[in-house]
Amino acid sequence: MKYIIGIDVGTTATKVVLYDENGQKVASAQREYPLIQEKMDQAEEDPKLIFDAVQDVIFSLSRKRKITAISWSSQMHSLIGLDGNKELLTNSLTWADNRAKNVVKKAKAEGLAQKIYQQTGMPIHPMAPVYKLFWLKQEKPEIFSEVKYWLGIKEYLIYRLTGKLVEDLSMAAGTGLLNLKTLTWDQELLSQVGITEQALPKLVKSSDVVGSVKEEYRRKLDLDENTKVIAGASDGYLSTIGVGAIDEADFAMNVGTSGAVRCLAKKSVIDKKAQFFCYPADQGYLIGGPVNNGGIVFEWARKVLLGPNESAENFLTLAQSAPVGNRGLIFHPYLGGERAPIWDANARGSFVGLTRSHTKAEMARSVIEGIVFNLYDASHEIIQSAGKPHAIRITGGFVRSDFIRQMLADVYNLPIIAMKNSESGTLAAMFLGRQALGLSRDLSEIRKFVSEEKVYFPDPENVTRYQKILPVYREIENDLAKSYEKLANLQNKLQ
Amino acid sequence: MKYIIGIDVGTTATKVVLYDENGQKVASAQREYPLIQEKMDQAEEDPKLIFDAVQDVIFSLSRKRKITAISWSSQMHSLIGLDGNKELLTNSLTWADNRAKNVVKKAKAEGLAQKIYQQTGMPIHPMAPVYKLFWLKQEKPEIFSEVKYWLGIKEYLIYRLTGKLVEDLSMAAGTGLLNLKTLTWDQELLSQVGITEQALPKLVKSSDVVGSVKEEYRRKLDLDENTKVIAGASDGYLSTIGVGAIDEADFAMNVGTSGAVRCLAKKSVIDKKAQFFCYPADQGYLIGGPVNNGGIVFEWARKVLLGPNESAENFLTLAQSAPVGNRGLIFHPYLGGERAPIWDANARGSFVGLTRSHTKAEMARSVIEGIVFNLYDASHEIIQSAGKPHAIRITGGFVRSDFIRQMLADVYNLPIIAMKNSESGTLAAMFLGRQALGLSRDLSEIRKFVSEEKVYFPDPENVTRYQKILPVYREIENDLAKSYEKLANLQNKLQ
Repeated sequence: MKYIIGIDVGTTATKVVLYDENGQKVASAQREYPLIQEKMDQAEEDPKLIFDAVQDVIFSLSRKRKITAISWSSQMHSLIGLDGNKELLTNSLTWADNRAKNVVKKAKAEGLAQKIYQQTGMPIHPMAPVYKLFWLKQEKPEIFSEVKYWLGIKEYLIYRLTGKLVEDLSMAAGTGLLNLKTLTWDQELLSQVGITEQALPKLVKSSDVVGSVKEEYRRKLDLDENTKVIAGASDGYLSTIGVGAIDEADFAMNVGTSGAVRCLAKKSVIDKKAQFFCYPADQGYLIGGPVNNGGIVFEWARKVLLGPNESAENFLTLAQSAPVGNRGLIFHPYLGGERAPIWDANARGSFVGLTRSHTKAEMARSVIEGIVFNLYDASHEIIQSAGKPHAIRITGGFVRSDFIRQMLADVYNLPIIAMKNSESGTLAAMFLGRQALGLSRDLSEIRKFVSEEKVYFPDPENVTRYQKILPVYREIENDLAKSYEKLANLQNKLQ
Repeated sequence: MKYIIGIDVGTTATKVVLYDENGQKVASAQREYPLIQEKMDQAEEDPKLIFDAVQDVIFSLSRKRKITAISWSSQMHSLIGLDGNKELLTNSLTWADNRAKNVVKKAKAEGLAQKIYQQTGMPIHPMAPVYKLFWLKQEKPEIFSEVKYWLGIKEYLIYRLTGKLVEDLSMAAGTGLLNLKTLTWDQELLSQVGITEQALPKLVKSSDVVGSVKEEYRRKLDLDENTKVIAGASDGYLSTIGVGAIDEADFAMNVGTSGAVRCLAKKSVIDKKAQFFCYPADQGYLIGGPVNNGGIVFEWARKVLLGPNESAENFLTLAQSAPVGNRGLIFHPYLGGERAPIWDANARGSFVGLTRSHTKAEMARSVIEGIVFNLYDASHEIIQSAGKPHAIRITGGFVRSDFIRQMLADVYNLPIIAMKNSESGTLAAMFLGRQALGLSRDLSEIRKFVSEEKVYFPDPENVTRYQKILPVYREIENDLAKSYEKLANLQNKLQ
C-alpha cells in the first residue's frame, strides 16, 4: 500500500491528511502557529515556526507508515526574503498584511496597478507580493537590497525539505509577477520592481516531483530516499478541483470566516473592472473572487443582535422566522472592508430601509441575506466571463444549514451542491501526488474521490422575490460607496 | 377667586387643566378618543366624540367651581366639512391623514406647492387642509360640493359651545390658506381650490373673547352666562410661549413620540428650501420644524436591540457606556419618513459605518445620537433665519434623562434649559384667558408662570467631537436620500 501526505499550509495552522493509494483518508494531524500583528496593518508569520509545525505533523504520520509522497496546498500571496546563503532575512508577510496599501493607492493613481492586473491577473490589492516588494524597497531599503532570493511560504518549506528553490504556476500567479500570456516571470515588472529572475524560484508544474527529502530530515522525520516531494499548488486552486469543480460547468464556493467563489476556466479572462483574479494553473485558469465578509459577519451579528452566549442555531432560527427580503430591510456586509466584488478596504457595513415595524428577526435575516447577496455579486462578473454554471459546489462553516443553502439556491437561481468532504485542499494535494506517481492521469479522475452530501434546487417564488431585491441592494451599495472613505477618515479621527 | 380652564385638544386625547387666578394648577382631567385608520393613509376622528370628551372634562371641573373662562390649545391641520345647516358632512381629517400625498406630489411638480409655501408659510405636506381640499374635490366631489363651511377641530368645538364660526390666526395659518403678508384668507388660493371666504371661519385674535356658552350647554355643563369662551390658539404656538420662549433669544423644543423645534420671531421668514413653517400668531411669527422621529424611534430601538421587556433606563445605561460618536457608527432615524428637516415621507432609517468591532451599546447610542442630530438639523435653517438663540427650552418624554439633555447641549453647543412644567399648552391657553380677562397684558408676563428644572451647559471636548461627526452624518444622509423612493417602492412590492 502506498501512502500520500497532503499538507495544507494555512494562515493560522497547518493541517495534514494521510491518504492511502485508494484515496481513503487514513489519519490526520494539525498544528497551529501565531500571526504577528504588532503594528498597524502588519500580519507576519515566522517561517521557522511553520517549518517546525510541518515537521511535527509529518512526523506524527510517518512514524507508523512508509510515506511515498508529500504534496502541498498552500496559503497564497506570502513573501519571504533570503540572503545569499539562503538564510531568512524577513518573516513571511502574509496575505493579511496590508502595509502596502499606500503603494497600491499610488500605483492605482499612476495606472501601474491596472497594468499589473492586465499582465498578471492579480487583483489590485496590497496582499500581492509585487506591491509588498515596492513597499519594502521604499520602507526598508537596507533589507530589500540585502535579499538575494524572494519566495513564498510553500517555496520556503519545500526548500528546507529538499534544497530546491521551485514554485508552481498557481502560487507564482499570486505574486503579481507572473505574465499571464507567457507563463514566465514578467521581465518588465521585474525590472520595475528592481529584481532579476535569478532572485525568484524556478517555475514548475504542480504535479512535478521536486526531488527527495534531504538526508538531515529523512532521519529526523522517519522518511527515506524514496519519499517524493511534490510541488503542490495554491489552496485556491486545490480547494476548487478538490470539490470536483474542474471546468466551467461547476463553480466552487467556500465560505468560512471569509469566502471565495472560483471556477476553473479553459481560457484566461481579464475583467475590465478588475473585479476577479485570473491565475494560471497546470490545466486552465482559476478565475474567482475572494470575499472578506463571510461567517465572520454572521458571528458579529449573533453576538451583537442576539447576545454573546446565544448559539448560531438560535440566530438561524430567529432569522428564518422573517420573510424573504425582510419587507425591504437591506444589509451591506462590509464590516471588514471588502475584496471582491467591490475591492474597497474602506467599505463599511450598513442596515438601510428601516421602518418602525422592523423586528430583530428581520435584522438577523437581513445580515445573512447581505452576506449571500455579496457572494452572488462576487460571482456575477465571473459568470459574465465564464458563462452561467450548471451548479455551485459549496463547502465551509457558513453554509452548513439547510436555511442558508436554500437561500444560496434562491439567490443564484441555480442548484447548490453541498459537498461531503471538507478537506478539499489536502484531497486535491493528494491527487497531485497520485498524478506525480502515475496513479491518476486526467484531472477529471479527481471526481472519484469527491462526494456530494445534498443538492438544493431554487424555489421559483423566492427567486422572483430576490430578483426584485438585488437591484435595489446594488443601487444603494453604489450610493453608499461614496461614503466609505469619509467614514473611514471619521473613524480614524475618533479613535 | 377666578378660575380659567385650559383645554388641550390633542390627537388621541383631550386634557384640561383648571388654573386659579394666580396661575396655579388646581385640578386636571383627561379623556381619550379613537383615531380611525381603516384605509391606507387615513387618519380621521369623529368630531362628535371629541365634543363629548370636551363636555365631560369641562363638567368634571365646573361642578365644584365657577368657571370664568375657557381657553384652548389645539392640534393643527384638521379639516371638517359642514352643510348649510352647519351639520357634519365629514369626520375630522387629522394632521396624520396622508391621503393627499399624490395631490402634493402633483402640486410640487407644477410649482403650486412652492407657491403655497411662499404665500402662506405652510410646508409642502399632505397634512395641510389646502391639499386635503384638493383631494376631496377630486376623490369625493359630491361631498366637496355639498359642504358649505370648512373648519378645523377647535373651530368646530367653539362653534358647538358658542354658535360662532371663528378661527384664530395661529390655527388659520396651519390650513395653508392664510396669506402671510395680509393675514387674511388668500383669495387667489381660495379660487384655485374652488371655495369662497364665506365658507371659512371669521379670523380673530387668540386672546379674543368669542362669546358666552349657549344656554343648552350652560345648563348641561354647570356654566353660566358669565363664562367666557376664548378663541385660543394652536398647540405649536402655545407650547412655545408656554415654556417662556417668547422671542428669538430662546428656542422651544418638545420631543415626545415625535418632536418639534420652534421660535417666536418678530418678522415672517420664508426658507428657500421650504424646510420650516412660518405661522403668524397674535404677536410675531412662529417658525419651526416638526419632526416625526423622536421618542418613537428610541422605543423601537429599545424593543428591537435590547428586548421588549427591557426598560428605557437599561437602554440609556447601555447607550451611555459607548463613546461619543460610536467610533464612526452613524444612525439616520427616519423610521417613519420625515417632515423637518428633509420633508420626505419615503425616508427610511439606517445604520452606516459598521465594523466588526462595533457593539450593541454603540448601536444603542447611535440611535439616540441620530435622533438628536436630526433635531439639530431641523433647527439649523431656523437658526440661519432667526439667529442663534441664547438657550433652548426643552420639554417632553424623550428629554427626561441627564444623558440626553447633556447630548443636546453638546450637539447644539448651547445651554439647554429643562423645563419643570410639562403642560405648557394648557398653561399658555390659560394665559390667553388672563389676557382676555385683563389679568395679564404683555406676553412677557407669561414667564412668571414658567419654571426651570435645570440648565445643561456644553462640554467643549464633546462639542468638538460632534462637530467632526455632523458633516459626515449629513453627507451620508444626502447620499442615501436618492435611495428612499427605491426602498419605499421595494417595500410596497414585498408587502
